[in-house]
Amino acid sequence: MNNDSDQLTITRRMRGLPSSCVRDIMKATEGRDTISFAGGLPRPDLLPLAAVREATDRVLLREGGSALQYSATEGNLELRALIAERLLAPRGVRVSPEQVLITTGSQQGLDLLGKVLLEAGAQVALENPSYLAAIQAFGLYEPQYLPVEMDEEGVLPDALAHCCRDQNPSFFYAIPDFQNPTGRLYSRERREAVVEVLAQRRLPLVEDAPYSHLAYGDEPGPMLAASYGAHTFVMGTVSKVLAPGFRIGWVAGPQRWIEPLVKAKQATDLCTGAFVQRIVAELLRELDLPEHVARLRAAYRRQRDAMLTALAEHMPPGVMWTRPAGGMFVWLSLPPNLDAREVLARTLPRGVVFALGESFSPDGCYRHAMRLNFTNASEAAIRQGVAILAEEAKALF
Amino acid sequence: MNNDSDQLTITRRMRGLPSSCVRDIMKATEGRDTISFAGGLPRPDLLPLAAVREATDRVLLREGGSALQYSATEGNLELRALIAERLLAPRGVRVSPEQVLITTGSQQGLDLLGKVLLEAGAQVALENPSYLAAIQAFGLYEPQYLPVEMDEEGVLPDALAHCCRDQNPSFFYAIPDFQNPTGRLYSRERREAVVEVLAQRRLPLVEDAPYSHLAYGDEPGPMLAASYGAHTFVMGTVSKVLAPGFRIGWVAGPQRWIEPLVKAKQATDLCTGAFVQRIVAELLRELDLPEHVARLRAAYRRQRDAMLTALAEHMPPGVMWTRPAGGMFVWLSLPPNLDAREVLARTLPRGVVFALGESFSPDGCYRHAMRLNFTNASEAAIRQGVAILAEEAKALF
Repeated sequence: MNNDSDQLTITRRMRGLPSSCVRDIMKATEGRDTISFAGGLPRPDLLPLAAVREATDRVLLREGGSALQYSATEGNLELRALIAERLLAPRGVRVSPEQVLITTGSQQGLDLLGKVLLEAGAQVALENPSYLAAIQAFGLYEPQYLPVEMDEEGVLPDALAHCCRDQNPSFFYAIPDFQNPTGRLYSRERREAVVEVLAQRRLPLVEDAPYSHLAYGDEPGPMLAASYGAHTFVMGTVSKVLAPGFRIGWVAGPQRWIEPLVKAKQATDLCTGAFVQRIVAELLRELDLPEHVARLRAAYRRQRDAMLTALAEHMPPGVMWTRPAGGMFVWLSLPPNLDAREVLARTLPRGVVFALGESFSPDGCYRHAMRLNFTNASEAAIRQGVAILAEEAKALF
Repeated sequence: MNNDSDQLTITRRMRGLPSSCVRDIMKATEGRDTISFAGGLPRPDLLPLAAVREATDRVLLREGGSALQYSATEGNLELRALIAERLLAPRGVRVSPEQVLITTGSQQGLDLLGKVLLEAGAQVALENPSYLAAIQAFGLYEPQYLPVEMDEEGVLPDALAHCCRDQNPSFFYAIPDFQNPTGRLYSRERREAVVEVLAQRRLPLVEDAPYSHLAYGDEPGPMLAASYGAHTFVMGTVSKVLAPGFRIGWVAGPQRWIEPLVKAKQATDLCTGAFVQRIVAELLRELDLPEHVARLRAAYRRQRDAMLTALAEHMPPGVMWTRPAGGMFVWLSLPPNLDAREVLARTLPRGVVFALGESFSPDGCYRHAMRLNFTNASEAAIRQGVAILAEEAKALF
């Protein structure tokens, strides 16, 4: 298997796909001692290791070979019911277990929605900035992106209305709870206003909610989908609360759209692993989720505070950042004439990395911005990392 | 979340996707006591349950939280090395661990190859009949299929040469070891002849090898990829040897093609689960694989023999079937004027199901054929099921 082939050419959809700065940075720092603000990783010592061990044992003893067999493409019905009852209903979203499709991480939900809903050239409205891997996932289906501006309370209803008036997006992709990358939480008033615009325009909604449990102050309250039932797909994951290593996510939506999503999933990976589905179902049933979530919140709140305090202490005037009430990220803006790439070029050799703002917008703006994760590093490392970051940013002023 | 939406329309790529008869049949028989020849499922009691339990314990104790964390998109390097050394090298395929991409089941490999290699309208040469879920997976990228005829020794070299002369396929998709759905094993001579045609035409090859370990007579010998190094992608899975419930597969290929495949995978599901990757690595290292494989072979050989004997006993003249030297399937042809759907309509109420032949060809031929799986049912069930099948087929003669 050598490289002498030029028979094959890469597809257009792949040529257009931006590379992920987070991935590139992780590769560049592989095996090195690094303070990483780049990824969206949980702190490994907060993962429920003992509970996973017990749950795995119970599943294998109780269910035997069927836990290692192929699963239905839709997923394990018990897990789907648990997600509907324990994770969606409390957020105001009423769905039957049959309306929940288990996906291989919520990332796969993005791919399946792209397969089923996006023709090449279709338009996708999304917050600006938005989740870089959603931009990539939908990007494979070659849509045209319509970035919609936000403020601290969420997407701007007028901007969204304007976007729908002039254009014809297939759906609006939003992360209203502790948004990625900004950490912003849509206020209750803003939720109402956004739902009103969606309803007026009958604009389908894809509501992605990976961070909703990670609230360090107020709870996020009902999802947009709770009051905007029609045309809505809700996505979730256990990656931020239980463990990313399971790759268990879900898409819930109108019954008639589950069947094509299932068909797309079957062609994509047949099914999500029966083994991890059973373990996650066992964890959702047996683990004291509120207690576990409280532990995560306490730890991540301290880490967020360490980051915000260090930023206030070290960053020069002219630098701005969000003060997230939850989630995993702070969004930091340098003065517009500065380039975050240049900061990264200086901090990388000193062992400090972060995600480039430009990756979070389909039009590559936000070159002066960066996304800082605070859930993976210790408080001491956060303080040290922010000090280095500020030093190198100042050097470019 | 109701159904009142007609705002959304399903994409063209999905409208063109055939539904899977295996899935439809499995749904129709859900919760009912059925003798199923339909799927490609292993026998649950042959899955290495105790070894999985021990491996899981060891992984969690030794690796702690990192076993539950995000994985590199390429996969766990140790697992990639084990696959290269223990599974590919013995088949004559020499690749570095970096050339092995871990996928979420080998089904995902098909999706990723489609994303990276297939523009809409591109041509794909494939055996006729071929794996129905490959037809679906590639189908999402809207290729034109070029089915190439086979005989008992594999694809016909002349037919393949003819196909390349008149057309311009992006690659040839083949399952030379105990093919799905026919169970056929390419002979050594045929392998050489096929590689010669591929080399002359510089036709890229996608060699899918899920069943290679399940040999009930001769070993399959070197892969096509062993002598056709350039332009080759090799796919594999642990689903048929360890357990399907892990969803661990791989694509190995030329180094310069791994990077776009990784990029496509990142957009598709970020990474395959770290947890199951570690467990599978542990199993490949610690399990006595030759002994485990010998046990599978002995059991499945008996089940195959039970099926072949029952077919010989019950089927009327004019019915033909393959006598596979390995794998999971017998391919059965009724007289051409009969429709396997009509047989299924009669056997389904009697609790016997199988896969329709027409699903295994992109042009829907083989309406008179069926694929019979013999690895999931007991010998007694196989005998009983074949007797019912023969009875209902005869009734249509």
